[in-house]
Amino acid sequence: MTTAETRGEFGRIDRFFKPLAAGFPGALGLRNDAAVFGVPPGHELVVTTDAMVAGVHFFADDSPGDIAAKLLAVNLSDLAAMGAEPLAYSLALCLPKDIDDDWLAGFAAGLAAGQAAYAFHLSGGDSVSTPGPVVLALTAFGVVPAGRALPRDGGPDAVGALLCVTGTPGDAALGLACAFGDVPGVDAAQRDYLLERLRRPTPRLAVGRGLRGLALACLDVSDGVLGDLAHLARESGCAAVVEAARLPLSSAAAAVLAADPSRLRDVLTGGDDYELLFAIRPEHWPAAAALARETDTPITAIGRLIAGPAGRVTALDAAGAPLVYDRLGWTHD
Amino acid sequence: MTTAETRGEFGRIDRFFKPLAAGFPGALGLRNDAAVFGVPPGHELVVTTDAMVAGVHFFADDSPGDIAAKLLAVNLSDLAAMGAEPLAYSLALCLPKDIDDDWLAGFAAGLAAGQAAYAFHLSGGDSVSTPGPVVLALTAFGVVPAGRALPRDGGPDAVGALLCVTGTPGDAALGLACAFGDVPGVDAAQRDYLLERLRRPTPRLAVGRGLRGLALACLDVSDGVLGDLAHLARESGCAAVVEAARLPLSSAAAAVLAADPSRLRDVLTGGDDYELLFAIRPEHWPAAAALARETDTPITAIGRLIAGPAGRVTALDAAGAPLVYDRLGWTHD
Repeated sequence: MTTAETRGEFGRIDRFFKPLAAGFPGALGLRNDAAVFGVPPGHELVVTTDAMVAGVHFFADDSPGDIAAKLLAVNLSDLAAMGAEPLAYSLALCLPKDIDDDWLAGFAAGLAAGQAAYAFHLSGGDSVSTPGPVVLALTAFGVVPAGRALPRDGGPDAVGALLCVTGTPGDAALGLACAFGDVPGVDAAQRDYLLERLRRPTPRLAVGRGLRGLALACLDVSDGVLGDLAHLARESGCAAVVEAARLPLSSAAAAVLAADPSRLRDVLTGGDDYELLFAIRPEHWPAAAALARETDTPITAIGRLIAGPAGRVTALDAAGAPLVYDRLGWTHD
Repeated sequence: MTTAETRGEFGRIDRFFKPLAAGFPGALGLRNDAAVFGVPPGHELVVTTDAMVAGVHFFADDSPGDIAAKLLAVNLSDLAAMGAEPLAYSLALCLPKDIDDDWLAGFAAGLAAGQAAYAFHLSGGDSVSTPGPVVLALTAFGVVPAGRALPRDGGPDAVGALLCVTGTPGDAALGLACAFGDVPGVDAAQRDYLLERLRRPTPRLAVGRGLRGLALACLDVSDGVLGDLAHLARESGCAAVVEAARLPLSSAAAAVLAADPSRLRDVLTGGDDYELLFAIRPEHWPAAAALARETDTPITAIGRLIAGPAGRVTALDAAGAPLVYDRLGWTHD
């Protein structure tokens, strides 16, 4: 934190955030102009930045603990998609004047919980005031053995690869629908589950690590399964086919689809799931299944990369007929 | 850059920003979830984050090239204060919908110019929309030989150390005064000079490198000479005395002070100079003078660290009488 911002009104930042850096010597107690830390020999640094704006990426009245959890999760998910281990993060906080100590305490508590869960530490940052909405920009640092970061494109051998996802994508999109109004088919507990999946995605770090040397290509689903699959296929120079009936559904999502089958579109094209989507050689499926067991994380094969126009994605319904959507993915902007 | 934001409306970000990452292989062409790069053997990473908000840290109608230059400079200045070499940076852009291609082109051109000047490269980032003002959060990565980062506190031997500054602090504060209205005593060229110093501070990277092993403590002056000196003294556990008459003035600043001696207060307490302020043993002054010559950067001794209450700073006028100000520094919050 630069010193101007940690004095006076923002001395409270110091109070709430210094404890978050206590476990990371490189943070130098947040007293310096910068953090200083090494990367273990034989390793590379993996760096990702994600910004979130109140009213765009989260609801301004979401609990500050949920906001902190999501901010960490979306960045940790990027590290997971690279096969990296979390190390530390730098945080830029842009706060309106009406943010009070209760909000900051809740936000810091949310960060502390995430740090403890993922062995992740605050290394530094900046806090400034803004006349606009809350803006949070986090830059996450991870480490990966040199040359072992997961690629995003499958290369020339990608055709024929099995496409797999972790968890139950689509929950976050249905959670968003629940946040905006009634969704037929869900009971209160299922609604809460879907909202929780929206607000507190689970970064798939253990799966990401386990995919080193196994995944031909990997990314995290932030824009919807079909949209992100189009990216993966495009960059691999091939097309893809997905069998919608294979898509793993949570019981809450299954209840929604039973009441309204057209919600399949939300499941396939909705964003914010932060599950991993990856391609493996078919003969490596047993290794993927073993990884699922070792990490207690569902892994499901949902389709294939196929020869065809780069980035073309075909989703087939249970009868084998193509599903046609006007867009494949979700964008926050 | 995450993919959602580089499509559609923000495809233009891709167009303007990918070229900035072309010289840095670790950026992976901005196509991935993250950047991947190594740190040279025997070196540590130095990381700093600074955020700037339109209307708070810069004028919303400042030229986008100036805004880019300042964003880079304030972060590079933090690297300089640690004695680090610039390596790369991650950038979070939060842009209102009315930001147009001309603005982005100018901003990217400003980044490109700064990158070329300082061998600095875009490694990644995020771009999102905001209903509020432009917010720019930059996280800069530098490298320093392990264990050689400059400390911020001088330790127990700091008492008696000579306090030195680079350049001519105070110009930025007078430039800010010029931006807000007429400042008696300056002609048009001097006014332009002061405004330029405000808008385009010079990171003192070569001096910072040269201070490795020489400076007992170092920081960059972002909050005003007296305010930052108070930080340095407080963390060194001692007091400080500054002789105002020794403060190096640009000819523009000298013209302002000749017309209105009370402006000395702006020079001593105004922020945004981004000059280095550091402490050295008196017997090392010849080495500092040599560094000034080698780097074409003025270095001036302006005072001493003395025994006394930690953080107490006394500024003396030309007659040796203490100058009393109600606050020592400037805060943007």
